[in-house]
Amino acid sequence: MSDYDYEVRIDVRLRDVDFMGHVNNAVYATYLEQAREAYFTDVLDVSLVDVGTVLVNLEIEYARPIESDATVTVALGVAELGTSSVPIEYEIRADGERAATARTVQVVVDDETGESRPLPSEWHSRIETRR
Amino acid sequence: MSDYDYEVRIDVRLRDVDFMGHVNNAVYATYLEQAREAYFTDVLDVSLVDVGTVLVNLEIEYARPIESDATVTVALGVAELGTSSVPIEYEIRADGERAATARTVQVVVDDETGESRPLPSEWHSRIETRR
Amino acid sequence: MSDYDYEVRIDVRLRDVDFMGHVNNAVYATYLEQAREAYFTDVLDVSLVDVGTVLVNLEIEYARPIESDATVTVALGVAELGTSSVPIEYEIRADGERAATARTVQVVVDDETGESRPLPSEWHSRIETRR
Amino acid sequence: MSDYDYEVRIDVRLRDVDFMGHVNNAVYATYLEQAREAYFTDVLDVSLVDVGTVLVNLEIEYARPIESDATVTVALGVAELGTSSVPIEYEIRADGERAATARTVQVVVDDETGESRPLPSEWHSRIETRR
Repeated sequence: MSDYDYEVRIDVRLRDVDFMGHVNNAVYATYLEQAREAYFTDVLDVSLVDVGTVLVNLEIEYARPIESDATVTVALGVAELGTSSVPIEYEIRADGERAATARTVQVVVDDETGESRPLPSEWHSRIETRR
Repeated sequence: MSDYDYEVRIDVRLRDVDFMGHVNNAVYATYLEQAREAYFTDVLDVSLVDVGTVLVNLEIEYARPIESDATVTVALGVAELGTSSVPIEYEIRADGERAATARTVQVVVDDETGESRPLPSEWHSRIETRR
Repeated sequence: MSDYDYEVRIDVRLRDVDFMGHVNNAVYATYLEQAREAYFTDVLDVSLVDVGTVLVNLEIEYARPIESDATVTVALGVAELGTSSVPIEYEIRADGERAATARTVQVVVDDETGESRPLPSEWHSRIETRR
Repeated sequence: MSDYDYEVRIDVRLRDVDFMGHVNNAVYATYLEQAREAYFTDVLDVSLVDVGTVLVNLEIEYARPIESDATVTVALGVAELGTSSVPIEYEIRADGERAATARTVQVVVDDETGESRPLPSEWHSRIETRR
């Protein structure tokens, strides 16, 4: 159900590297966020800046360190949509090898109240079409 | 087994706040890292800078947003130690309220080979004493 | 005119350290921002989050590297106020030694138009009293 | 002497945006670092990770805010080389418009001693040829 059907290139920055000499563990979460933004912009035609979503869950399994000169991509696929939630599965790849797998769940919220609200119906069709 | 038995204050920075107006989701992982460093320094008497560990797993469940002027602490407790792994459970608190729960697993590695190695026996006693 | 008359403690994070093993050069700018926020909150009784200012100039002279376990403070003093600009001079100290000097100029802007506007007169008195 | 003769594209990340809704002032310094790394890799055939340099001076003049969806490039040119220092001038451009100008000075240091050392003679020829 959630094979990866979208992939985006991430430019590793020197600043992403930490005291251990590899991309810092927290930066992986930033790469995921950047991949979500690319997916939302390309597939749902809306920026995360303009649609209210909050992240409710994040899981990352680190498989191998990422060097500062690696070519990094994030592949992702949307899993089973909930009423107001968008679960996404990811694979972070460095030089073509799996560096991490990850999963996030974000919820669409009303900008005014902050309460969760149903996914726009258009998103269902756009995401289904993609598969 | 892993009640929180250690707590550290984190200074929220304006830079931690993102386009949504709250502390960015990836920054929570930085708060956890900072809490680990404080625990290692205080309880195990060693800095993460000086002992080779790699993070293999990270899970964060976000409960509520953190404002830039919140007083933030991270409470943590070490769960069942593995042969070479240190699982830690966390609660991130903003103004005394739970803002997130989290869990990490890190593995002690040999600086030269990068291979996992058994936990120093001293860590067992220091961590047990703490409980 | 602008001796340092305010000082704030900054908690160095492991994440501040870069591939060179010291606090990254860009992070100094974050320390300055954090010191400004502390000054604005303490002396002017307003957060940078709530008052519209934009940074127009930043200069940093790096004197020595900052280690991850250093005790860091930022001392600052407001220089000659302009009509709508607040120039600030800083010294970043690591373990009591000067690690950098810096200077910023920020301008107060109207939230609606983004145009510069005169400093609130109350700021003059609060800043003068401080000296 | 230092017209910009090199330009690199920077991917703006959502994480670069701060509480003010624009790319944070400290992130400009990271963009400059990333541009330096690209220049060093492309023109001098060495990564900043592998050659010891320290930043001694940074100046940024902010001209206009950068939006999260802007197309950003950094143009740069090396100014008059010193014995052991590399002064660089930059223009950060957002959607083709100047967003900031900047200048840095970095010094080549000996990895062991941390003392400044003369620039490799090959750098002179590579940089001159470029002009």
